[in-house]
Amino acid sequence: MPDYKLHCFAESGNAYKAALMLELTGQPWQAVFVDFFNGQTRDQQWRDEVNEQGEVPVLEHGEQRLTQSALILEYLAERTGQFGPQDEAEKREIWRWMLFDNHKFTAYYAALRFIFCLKNSGETPVVQFLRERATAAYRIVDAHLAKTPFMVGGRLTIADLSLAGYVFMPEDTGIDLAEFKHIEAWKARIMAVPGWRHPYELMPRVAG
Amino acid sequence: MPDYKLHCFAESGNAYKAALMLELTGQPWQAVFVDFFNGQTRDQQWRDEVNEQGEVPVLEHGEQRLTQSALILEYLAERTGQFGPQDEAEKREIWRWMLFDNHKFTAYYAALRFIFCLKNSGETPVVQFLRERATAAYRIVDAHLAKTPFMVGGRLTIADLSLAGYVFMPEDTGIDLAEFKHIEAWKARIMAVPGWRHPYELMPRVAG
Repeated sequence: MPDYKLHCFAESGNAYKAALMLELTGQPWQAVFVDFFNGQTRDQQWRDEVNEQGEVPVLEHGEQRLTQSALILEYLAERTGQFGPQDEAEKREIWRWMLFDNHKFTAYYAALRFIFCLKNSGETPVVQFLRERATAAYRIVDAHLAKTPFMVGGRLTIADLSLAGYVFMPEDTGIDLAEFKHIEAWKARIMAVPGWRHPYELMPRVAG
Repeated sequence: MPDYKLHCFAESGNAYKAALMLELTGQPWQAVFVDFFNGQTRDQQWRDEVNEQGEVPVLEHGEQRLTQSALILEYLAERTGQFGPQDEAEKREIWRWMLFDNHKFTAYYAALRFIFCLKNSGETPVVQFLRERATAAYRIVDAHLAKTPFMVGGRLTIADLSLAGYVFMPEDTGIDLAEFKHIEAWKARIMAVPGWRHPYELMPRVAG
């Protein structure tokens, strides 16, 4: 029996944050497929029974049920002793970037990718708005990574795993990623970590 | 000399989260006006010296400089012993809602208000997109507040102060707030807390 069950699907970068953490820390875990594209997370029964916030990932660990990727990352860092902060100052710095990620970096990029790439909206005012906002967030992270190899403390932490949720997704959102050379170098550093795997290799996809 | 300096402006609901917490916990604090509407947070020098993430609020406390409203709320709860969690389970529940707030509830509503009400965009596809997303987040919080008077633990906590960042702003975003009667009742409960003040009374406004 795996210790952890992760409610997820491969296209979710928010679920990938948790899946990659489980993988890199060597936890036995099992994916529970969520049929997001057919509305499972909008289903009232799923919300009542699994997550009232209507989102993946959800992590089950014994009697614990955790939601919100940043909280799941912190929970796993505390329990495994890996990729967490070394002191209170680092802890705040990690949370500062996980919050920025949830508010802007992942948030705008994921919405852009969903609408433009997965729903094939074509070029619309909403796409342009989301691309502008995502690009502004990318610039802030790129400027930070110009000064440091990883986001906090000079080593891989859960701050990196949070921000990296969607950056390996293959879809072309129309953002010129070559402009963000520090982010590109950071992505290569993360991919070089032993045990790294792509989201589409870690979690079940909608269409087999 | 006040103990705390808060970089803020009255129209920022994210700054209001911190300002109201300082006020309700009775901390001596001073507002440092940030000229957001004239681009101060986009200025490279401001970013280098105050916040590389280009956002308010920023809280100064002695040598400490904190950003991200959720972290500021937690910091003040720990130091004042007020409005924080009573145990680990409550702490996670509070963070779960603060993250949902940063990702969706405040995020979409604040963007909608900024574009539609403060920039007077008129009715556009972007406004409609943001209104839909904000409404979906409001529904989730309203359903939660149907079961409990405050978000976590049956009493006012920093989870409420986070989610309440923009709900007292007077501008009409085109969302029918009467639809969210549990949110309206919760707002009335927050306003009844001794010492409650409106954001426009707590922080300096752009146009005096």
